Amino acid sequence: MIDTRITGLEVVPIAFSDPPLLNAAGVHEPLALRTLVRLRAGDVVAWGEGRGDALPADVVPAVRDAVLGLDVFATSRIEAAVDAVLRRLRPELGPRARLTSFAPVEVAALDAQGRLLGKPVSELLGGALRERVDYSAYLFFKWAGHLDAEPDEWGEALDAAGVVAQARAFIDRYGFRSIKLKAGALHPDREVEALLALAEEFPGLPLRIDPNGAWSHETTLAVARRLDGVLEYLEDPVLGIDGMSRVHAETGIPLATNMCVVETAHLLPAVRTDAVQILLSDHHYWGGLRRTKDLAAICEAMGVGVSMHSNSHLGVSLAAMTHVAAAIPNLDHACDTHYPWNRADDVVVPGGIEIVDGAVAVPTGPGLGVEVDESRVEELHERYRAAGRTARDDGGYMRRRDPNFTDALPRY
Amino acid sequence: MIDTRITGLEVVPIAFSDPPLLNAAGVHEPLALRTLVRLRAGDVVAWGEGRGDALPADVVPAVRDAVLGLDVFATSRIEAAVDAVLRRLRPELGPRARLTSFAPVEVAALDAQGRLLGKPVSELLGGALRERVDYSAYLFFKWAGHLDAEPDEWGEALDAAGVVAQARAFIDRYGFRSIKLKAGALHPDREVEALLALAEEFPGLPLRIDPNGAWSHETTLAVARRLDGVLEYLEDPVLGIDGMSRVHAETGIPLATNMCVVETAHLLPAVRTDAVQILLSDHHYWGGLRRTKDLAAICEAMGVGVSMHSNSHLGVSLAAMTHVAAAIPNLDHACDTHYPWNRADDVVVPGGIEIVDGAVAVPTGPGLGVEVDESRVEELHERYRAAGRTARDDGGYMRRRDPNFTDALPRY
Repeated sequence: MIDTRITGLEVVPIAFSDPPLLNAAGVHEPLALRTLVRLRAGDVVAWGEGRGDALPADVVPAVRDAVLGLDVFATSRIEAAVDAVLRRLRPELGPRARLTSFAPVEVAALDAQGRLLGKPVSELLGGALRERVDYSAYLFFKWAGHLDAEPDEWGEALDAAGVVAQARAFIDRYGFRSIKLKAGALHPDREVEALLALAEEFPGLPLRIDPNGAWSHETTLAVARRLDGVLEYLEDPVLGIDGMSRVHAETGIPLATNMCVVETAHLLPAVRTDAVQILLSDHHYWGGLRRTKDLAAICEAMGVGVSMHSNSHLGVSLAAMTHVAAAIPNLDHACDTHYPWNRADDVVVPGGIEIVDGAVAVPTGPGLGVEVDESRVEELHERYRAAGRTARDDGGYMRRRDPNFTDALPRY
Repeated sequence: MIDTRITGLEVVPIAFSDPPLLNAAGVHEPLALRTLVRLRAGDVVAWGEGRGDALPADVVPAVRDAVLGLDVFATSRIEAAVDAVLRRLRPELGPRARLTSFAPVEVAALDAQGRLLGKPVSELLGGALRERVDYSAYLFFKWAGHLDAEPDEWGEALDAAGVVAQARAFIDRYGFRSIKLKAGALHPDREVEALLALAEEFPGLPLRIDPNGAWSHETTLAVARRLDGVLEYLEDPVLGIDGMSRVHAETGIPLATNMCVVETAHLLPAVRTDAVQILLSDHHYWGGLRRTKDLAAICEAMGVGVSMHSNSHLGVSLAAMTHVAAAIPNLDHACDTHYPWNRADDVVVPGGIEIVDGAVAVPTGPGLGVEVDESRVEELHERYRAAGRTARDDGGYMRRRDPNFTDALPRY
C-alpha cells in the first residue's frame, strides 16, 4: 500500500498585485498577502492557499513538527495537532483564527490525498454534484490606479457609469451571469444608483450589494426600499446579529453574511433570531473544505441558504473553492471570487483553471487538479519579503489620500 | 491507478435470533430482520448492514442499475442515484425511508474505499480521534424465553432484581461502564424501582432510561422527580417535539431522542424549542457514516449533545458505528448497542470485533476492518426466506400472550 504520511511542510508567505479596490475599510493596497502551504506526502507535493494571516512565521516550526508523520487522510487529527500548537503558542487566538491557520494545511492534505490516489479533491469530498461552478462578477468602486502610479487596465469606477463599464468588461471577458457590487465606500445614494444602473443594463442577472456593515439601520431601510425586488440578496448591510435580525424582520429582504457569522458559535444565535438567510461560506476561515461541507449541512438543517465569500486570492484557492462548491448539494448561489482582479500574478500554471461563461469547470485531474509554478511562488515570496508587510491595512492606505478617513462603522 | 468503480451490488435480507425483549411497542420476536449489502469494486468485496426495512426486494434491481459504474468515493452521487430510484419507484417514501435504504450502500462504499486503499473507514472520515469507543449496557425487561420455547441464557427480568442481575451479567462479561434501561414496558413505578436499584448497585455509573414515548406529561414529571440527580439523560419520555420541549422546560432534565428528531427537517424545530439536549444519532436512518458526521457537526453548532442509538444488529454495523463514533469529535456519551443480545448469530468472523472493558477498539484493518463469513450470511438469508416475514411486529407478538395489548402511546 502507498505511504500517505506527511513528510514535509513548508509555509510560504507571498504578495501579489492588487488593484485599488474601495471598501468600507478603505482601499486595497498595491500588494495583497497570502499564505501558501507546500506539503509532501509519499512521492507527491501538494499545495494549499490560505489567508495572509494564516500560519504566522513564529508558529510554523511547531506546526511542522506536529503534523510530520500524520496521515494526510486523517484531517481531523491534523486539525487537532495544529490546534494544539496554536493554543500553546498563541493562546490569545480564538477558534476562527486557529481554523484560519489550519485551512491551507487541510487543503494541501486533500490535494495530497487526491494526488496519491489519482482522484480529484471533489471526489474525496463525496463527489462532484455538478461539472461547473458558477461565480459572480465581483465589482468594486475603484480608483483609476494606485497612488503614485499610472491608471491600471480597469480604470476608474466611482459612479454608476464606471461600475456599469466595469461590469461590461467583466461579463464580456468571463461571461458572468450574476453580479455582486462591493459597497460601503461611497455615499449610499451613489451606490444605489450604481446598482440600479446595473439592473437596467443587465436585466435578469441576479444582483447583490455588500457594504460590509457600513450602513445604519435607517440607511439600510431606505436602501432596501429603493432596491425592493431588485436584489438576489443584501449582504451585511449592518453589523452584528441583532442588527441583521432587525433589518430582516422589518424588510423581509434575504440577508447574507460573512461578517456576523464567522465561527460555529455564531450559528445558533443567528438562527434563533433569523438574522441570516444566506451564509457566505469561506473555507479559508471555516477550517478547510471538509468543515465547509459540514457548514453547508448545518445551514441545510437550519434552513439557511449557502453561498461563498471571497478575499483576494490566486488559483490554488479558486480550485479549492470550486471542488468544495461542486460537492455541496445546497450551494445554490453563484460564488464570489476576486480572481479576475488577481489572476495576472497567479502561481497556477496558465490554463489550469479558467472562468468561462461565468463558471469554473471542476478540475478532473488528481488533487486540486492544478499545477503550481514553483519559480512563480519564489518570485511572489520575494515580493512579500521586499514589501516588509505582514498585515493588510486598507485604512492606512486610504488615509494617504484622505487623512480624515476612518474605518469606524456604520459610516452612513 | 486502481479502478474504484462499483461492479456489483447484491442485497441480502437476513434473519437472526433475538431474545424476547420488552418495549413500548410490544416484545421482540424470535427473529430480527436486517439487510446486508455486498458491494464489489475493483478487486474487493465490501459490506454494509442496514435496517430490515432498507432496500426492499422490488427496488433492488433498479438501485443496482443506478449505482453500477459509479465511483465508490462519490458517495454523494451514489446517494443521489439511490434517491432518484426510490423517488420514482416508491414516491410514498419520505426522506428518512430513502436514507434508510441508502445507508447500507454508503457503508459498503466506505468499506470498499478502505479495502481499496488499505485504510480503515475511520481514516476516510477524517481520522479516528480515539482508539476505543465506549458502549453502554443496554438492559431490557424480558420474558424468560420466547413463547413455546425454553428459557434463554439471560432468563427473566420483570422486576428490579431481574434487571440488576442482567446488568451484573452484562458488566461481568463486557465491562460496561454505563447503563441504559429500556422502559415503557411495565408500570413506570416498577421501571423507576429498577433504575433506582441499578443506581444503588452500580454507584457512579451513568444511567439512562428510555420508555419510547410511553409516558404522559404528568407521569414524566413524577418519574423525573423520583430520578432527580440519578440520570445521565432521560430518553424520549413523551412523544413529539412539543411534548419534549415542555418536559425539559419544566424539569431541566437533559432529554435525548431517537424518536422526535429522525430527519433533518426536525432539527430546527427541536432547537428552536429546546426540546432535545442529546441527539441519538443512527447512521442506519440518517443516511450513512458521512451524514452521521454531518449530523454531529450540526448538533455541535446547535449546542446539542450527541450519543448513538441502536437497533438489533450484527458486527458489520458495530464496526461501522465504531468507526464513525471514533471520528466524531463531540460524541461524548457511550453509544447504545444491542450487540450482546445478537452476537451469537453474527456474520462477522469471530474475534473480528469485541466489547472489552465496555468499549470496542476501533478496527485498524482496511475498510470496516471485519471479515464476513459468507456461509453464515447464506444461512441467515435462508432463515429469512423460511420465516416469510418482511416486517417487524413487536405488538402482534405481544398480543399472542396478551390479546388486549395495544401499542397506543402514551400508555401510562
